[in-house]
Amino acid sequence: MNIPKQNLRIPGPTPCPEEIMELMSRPMINHRGPEFKELLFSVTERLKQVFQTGNDLYILTASGTGALEASLVNTLSPGDEVIAAVTGSFGSRYADMAEAVGASVTRLDFEWGTDVDLETLRQALQVQPDVKAVLVTHNETSTGVVNDLEAIAAMVKGEFDKLLLVDAISSLGCVPLPVDRWCCDVVATASQKGFLTPPGLSFISFGPEAWKARKSATATSFYFDLEAAQSYLEKGQTPFTPNLSLFYALDRSLDVLLGEGLEETYTRHAYFADMTRRGVKALGLELLPRDHCASNTITAVRVPESIDAKALVNTLHLEHNVVVAGGLGQLEGKIIRIGHLGAVAESDIIDCLEALGKTLQAMGFRA
Amino acid sequence: MNIPKQNLRIPGPTPCPEEIMELMSRPMINHRGPEFKELLFSVTERLKQVFQTGNDLYILTASGTGALEASLVNTLSPGDEVIAAVTGSFGSRYADMAEAVGASVTRLDFEWGTDVDLETLRQALQVQPDVKAVLVTHNETSTGVVNDLEAIAAMVKGEFDKLLLVDAISSLGCVPLPVDRWCCDVVATASQKGFLTPPGLSFISFGPEAWKARKSATATSFYFDLEAAQSYLEKGQTPFTPNLSLFYALDRSLDVLLGEGLEETYTRHAYFADMTRRGVKALGLELLPRDHCASNTITAVRVPESIDAKALVNTLHLEHNVVVAGGLGQLEGKIIRIGHLGAVAESDIIDCLEALGKTLQAMGFRA
Repeated sequence: MNIPKQNLRIPGPTPCPEEIMELMSRPMINHRGPEFKELLFSVTERLKQVFQTGNDLYILTASGTGALEASLVNTLSPGDEVIAAVTGSFGSRYADMAEAVGASVTRLDFEWGTDVDLETLRQALQVQPDVKAVLVTHNETSTGVVNDLEAIAAMVKGEFDKLLLVDAISSLGCVPLPVDRWCCDVVATASQKGFLTPPGLSFISFGPEAWKARKSATATSFYFDLEAAQSYLEKGQTPFTPNLSLFYALDRSLDVLLGEGLEETYTRHAYFADMTRRGVKALGLELLPRDHCASNTITAVRVPESIDAKALVNTLHLEHNVVVAGGLGQLEGKIIRIGHLGAVAESDIIDCLEALGKTLQAMGFRA
Repeated sequence: MNIPKQNLRIPGPTPCPEEIMELMSRPMINHRGPEFKELLFSVTERLKQVFQTGNDLYILTASGTGALEASLVNTLSPGDEVIAAVTGSFGSRYADMAEAVGASVTRLDFEWGTDVDLETLRQALQVQPDVKAVLVTHNETSTGVVNDLEAIAAMVKGEFDKLLLVDAISSLGCVPLPVDRWCCDVVATASQKGFLTPPGLSFISFGPEAWKARKSATATSFYFDLEAAQSYLEKGQTPFTPNLSLFYALDRSLDVLLGEGLEETYTRHAYFADMTRRGVKALGLELLPRDHCASNTITAVRVPESIDAKALVNTLHLEHNVVVAGGLGQLEGKIIRIGHLGAVAESDIIDCLEALGKTLQAMGFRA
């Protein structure tokens, strides 16, 4: 299949710089040899810099959901009480995953488009003193909402001393998430979001409190066992054959990211998010999220009632080569989502906004 | 890191043809869009041709071990009786994995270097009428032994009607494995062995008897749930973000494999295996496996007692740019393993044998 290059404005996979993509074609090496050992150590150390953590960190050959599964099976046992803060489709899925490992999950459901209400979370923690872990989605990709993880972590760790498991798939590397400063015990993310690389690897940081939980956890997975990951890492290996091509790409992308500087990367994401939000509003459209919690990696836009959302997405794709995402779950047909994370150029956003404006006009929308 | 191209003679990852590797650099697309749908359907259908199966088949973003985990969590429940035929390190690992999901595993341990003894397996099945599944490693990568899967399957299915789960990671696409003709219920393999592509994807076929077992199975994994894989496949999607780059490569590699023809591919593997075995014997070395079960994808060679196996592997690498694998587990320091699967050129084998001869001579070995 020969698919022409698109203005890919979904929330990942993101377009990746050519200098990084070229490395995907490099020849295979022995994944149990000295060259891979050096590569694994080097990439792991630099990932820790992006995570801003001294915690253990593992690279898994799996999508981000694999790292989320690792966060659960390495800390929980069937019957454990868990609170899941759900602000959208991905938060709900994280809760489903905890249920799949047998945890007794209390779901705190917040209206889709709003962020976690701290007082509601505090009350839930007060009511359930035996809760073992709290699950939080840092950036809810389905609603374009970023949760105030710093405040949530301060409460979960500072006031209640519970294990904090964070889905940071569409946030890490794009918006501030200093893992150690905020005391996040387990943080999971993936290669195809903020990391300028294709999908296929996920990353998980695992702190001392998580290791304590690991000792008594009876949920199991052979593939996502972080004790095995640790014992192989000590030898400079992964337990199972790793995705070498993505390691080559990541080796370069981490240089690019750290070369730019984390603060600069966050500023760049804030800039493109602001540009997208202003542009969308200028077209007469409304954002789904409240302003205070609008995400810097993805913008969720309400589709006017007179417009068929599916037709809008298809027309943008077929007539303008602009690929945006539709709504998930209860938001299907009600929103479109514009990704602006990873390697974004100003022209990508302008092109997307122009195409959106023209298409809406052609579909009869008047602001 | 800039690692020069090696004569990579390990049993996977294998060197991949340049025309396939080039596709790894292609731009990202929407994994929930029409282009990926077409790609997924097309690749899945052609994989079924290589598996020679009409069974359901799923592509997982994970190493081969992930597909093995899927084979177990989708068919077994804690307490289920399982027989594992163990002929080496990978057979032992498959048994470990079944134990990790809570199965009660009877291990039939065969001497490393020999294949599964059919009579021993028959007796075990007679003694344990309540066995739910039999685990078999088709090609045992750690010992260079290929098991007679056709005969094993005829017994397990024909005489005892038990579920047959097959680790075909280093065999499928290289040696005959007609999944439906041999009635193999579940067969798992990976992208970096016979498929001319890098590691990062695994493939699993799942037949009607396996689906029956799925209904009562209570072992769980969210990431490796094949019911979710099925419901997304019906939409032309995968449940989680797939490794797009490897799909691009696989799209081409399947054309190459099916263009060559399966029989021709098997013949080619037999030819290079024969060449390797003869060459090794001509150097005065002995094979680990008996002749009747020597693998066509990897040759395990006994290291003479006077020779330090680790030094031999290192010298081949550092002085001759030839990368072979050492022994695993109880065979560490006792054998080396030469891979000859995937895209092998005659010159690769000759170069490897020449380097081996020279290195052994320099180390003082006289046949």
